[in-house]
Amino acid sequence: MPRLETLMTDDLRAFRRQAGDRHTAFKARGLKLDSTRGKPSAEQLDLSNALLDLPGTDGFKAQDGGDCRNYLGDVRGLPEARALFAPMLGAPADQMLVGGNSSLTLMHDLIVFALLHGVPDGTASWSAQAPVSFLCPVPGYDRHFSICEGFGIRLVPVPLTGHGPDMDVVERLVAGDPGIKGMWCVPKYSNPTAETYSDETVERLAAMRTAAPDFRLFWDNAYAVHHLTDRPHQLADILAACARHGHANRPFVFGSTSKVTFAGAGLSLFASSTANLDWARKHLSRQSIGPDKLNQLRHVRLLRDMAGIAALMERHRQILVPKFQRVQAVFAEHLDGAGVARWTEPEGGYFISLDVRPGSARRVVTLAQEAGVAMVAPGATFPYGKDPQDQNIRIAPTFPALPEVGLAAEGVALSVLVATSEAILAERESHSGH
Amino acid sequence: MPRLETLMTDDLRAFRRQAGDRHTAFKARGLKLDSTRGKPSAEQLDLSNALLDLPGTDGFKAQDGGDCRNYLGDVRGLPEARALFAPMLGAPADQMLVGGNSSLTLMHDLIVFALLHGVPDGTASWSAQAPVSFLCPVPGYDRHFSICEGFGIRLVPVPLTGHGPDMDVVERLVAGDPGIKGMWCVPKYSNPTAETYSDETVERLAAMRTAAPDFRLFWDNAYAVHHLTDRPHQLADILAACARHGHANRPFVFGSTSKVTFAGAGLSLFASSTANLDWARKHLSRQSIGPDKLNQLRHVRLLRDMAGIAALMERHRQILVPKFQRVQAVFAEHLDGAGVARWTEPEGGYFISLDVRPGSARRVVTLAQEAGVAMVAPGATFPYGKDPQDQNIRIAPTFPALPEVGLAAEGVALSVLVATSEAILAERESHSGH
Repeated sequence: MPRLETLMTDDLRAFRRQAGDRHTAFKARGLKLDSTRGKPSAEQLDLSNALLDLPGTDGFKAQDGGDCRNYLGDVRGLPEARALFAPMLGAPADQMLVGGNSSLTLMHDLIVFALLHGVPDGTASWSAQAPVSFLCPVPGYDRHFSICEGFGIRLVPVPLTGHGPDMDVVERLVAGDPGIKGMWCVPKYSNPTAETYSDETVERLAAMRTAAPDFRLFWDNAYAVHHLTDRPHQLADILAACARHGHANRPFVFGSTSKVTFAGAGLSLFASSTANLDWARKHLSRQSIGPDKLNQLRHVRLLRDMAGIAALMERHRQILVPKFQRVQAVFAEHLDGAGVARWTEPEGGYFISLDVRPGSARRVVTLAQEAGVAMVAPGATFPYGKDPQDQNIRIAPTFPALPEVGLAAEGVALSVLVATSEAILAERESHSGH
Repeated sequence: MPRLETLMTDDLRAFRRQAGDRHTAFKARGLKLDSTRGKPSAEQLDLSNALLDLPGTDGFKAQDGGDCRNYLGDVRGLPEARALFAPMLGAPADQMLVGGNSSLTLMHDLIVFALLHGVPDGTASWSAQAPVSFLCPVPGYDRHFSICEGFGIRLVPVPLTGHGPDMDVVERLVAGDPGIKGMWCVPKYSNPTAETYSDETVERLAAMRTAAPDFRLFWDNAYAVHHLTDRPHQLADILAACARHGHANRPFVFGSTSKVTFAGAGLSLFASSTANLDWARKHLSRQSIGPDKLNQLRHVRLLRDMAGIAALMERHRQILVPKFQRVQAVFAEHLDGAGVARWTEPEGGYFISLDVRPGSARRVVTLAQEAGVAMVAPGATFPYGKDPQDQNIRIAPTFPALPEVGLAAEGVALSVLVATSEAILAERESHSGH
């Protein structure tokens, strides 16, 4: 594959035509492929099918004898579920809460409580201190951003470095602006770049001085156990680090079983300081008598302990690794050397992050969609859906079957070649026109 | 039983001593009885035990083929669940939403969205129009009140009449104060008085002029199918009535299966105008990818249709009626003619409402608790936990087994006799002291 920028214009035109022909031929196959979101495949979901007839007609009692078919008034969830998931988030069980089917809902609702009531260490509700801003390392997760957008919380992008956010930028911003109340973090196998925050990054996030006394890290450890290699990343303990630096109330730690068992029918997890837990309990207790404890029982029976979780995740890994490898192989085959795209080789998580020639991502997505590959909207990995460089594309290889994963990657790669050769030609023409 | 007020003071003293001895003897039995909350009994929960191994390993597909183990992106819930429950709330299926395990959460969250974003027909968020007030017919449901208390929404009590709230009072209040944004209603077999709003009440609620253009009825039809006789109450259709009067966006209609299948592991229901549904969907979509659709499938498979729901509710009725009758019989035996208590004879719902001599309810509850009967806090049926007459007590006869229900009622009745004879004596002494 020639480096496109180095081709003479006529050769580039020929390349463009040839790539266009291959794209057209691909399109003519009338495929319908889905690379939109980080969804587990049916094969992965099958791994947890035992949940489908749990807890069973004799199995509705909690360890303490409580009848999980009835109201059980503790919004923190079942003790055995809290004990099971505490090590997954690196928290003591008495600082854990196990909730309903959506960790996004927990994040959303804690922001609501902060806006309307304020948080521990704060002098007023966040709404009374408007305008409120959140830092968001980019590229990041669109659903995080959209919660803030919905509440008029200003989103301030911070570049990721490969080992977490650029901490020089973060430290400067939070020290200077008391309106910065929060920061979105996907600290392990980040969505979409798959990077894990380094020990130094975690330490600096815990130690840094914030102008806002009521600043919170929204630590969405969504991929805590979602390894793709046999060398799992180790994430430093944010709860301990913050406590050590006198900022015990800084981290809100979230987790989820949506990509462990069933997506959208799993459990949400929250861990934090005792003061934050008490605060959350108080407000959650007005919202609900408690989460669905039968579903918590199902999960306790299926997963049992961290060894059970690890064994299940190993089976997920066996299904996922070939899909990730297939995308890498197809991208390498079509794009290596062309100098118009870089992509991650994730060691965990659910995504491959593809960076194309700046200014071309939107066009790539359009072409891919024309070729039958459903993609997430271009720009989705940035606040307000606007990628300032128009270069990042999130590839989600988990849901389709392996052959379709390869085809989808091929459709994307051909679209990259068409879009970027087009763009280089257009740039040369515009220059020659001046 | 003599009418206590008519007894000569010496006879009343003797009565008081005798009642006290019986109360002491009851207390000495060291019973532990629970009449706190409206919880179904284990026997009732058994009726839905088929849920415990549903949907089964082959049963995870929705009618449209969607895999309910995976993310399915519609916050309105499964179409077949919406169709199943639409007639229960008297709504078209396309104006229905089926949510997670708590209708209280839906009510809470819609208030949050109204506070932070405003509702259709409003010119600003409710927070921007503070102070916000809600009308609350009393006695009513403490968890409704506590949502408002948590958000600093002022609660304005309105008396119930036996066929709904006093509409002269309601009409006057809502016409005069644009800060009144909502009204709590449990329109059928109301908690705790068991009254059903008359057709005229419903009509006037639908027709009335409100100073606030963004006023909402929080229509918690929690006991829609919870009959205790074979002459089910008929509640007029609030959605149709409001639409007819040009107030289609006025009602937020809620329902729940918590007292149909499993309490706290059931489904929440919401029906409203298309504009309100669109508004709710928009905000709920930022909060969550969607509710647990496997639990919706379980319910569809168990209940099937309105006939299935009715058949199940008939079996609940067979369990509940003897418990309600037992309380009536024990109260009649101990209290008839004493002139110190009145109680409801509910034709549906979960509670008996007991009114004692004004100023005595708190003392009755204390005595009952001393006698081993756990009761909800006195005043709980009023905003801020304060019953201005200190006379209402909510009796919850559903949870304990039948013999315990009778014992609990006896403990309460003895406590009523002690507390009220004490109170009459104290009053006489205070009068003779002047």
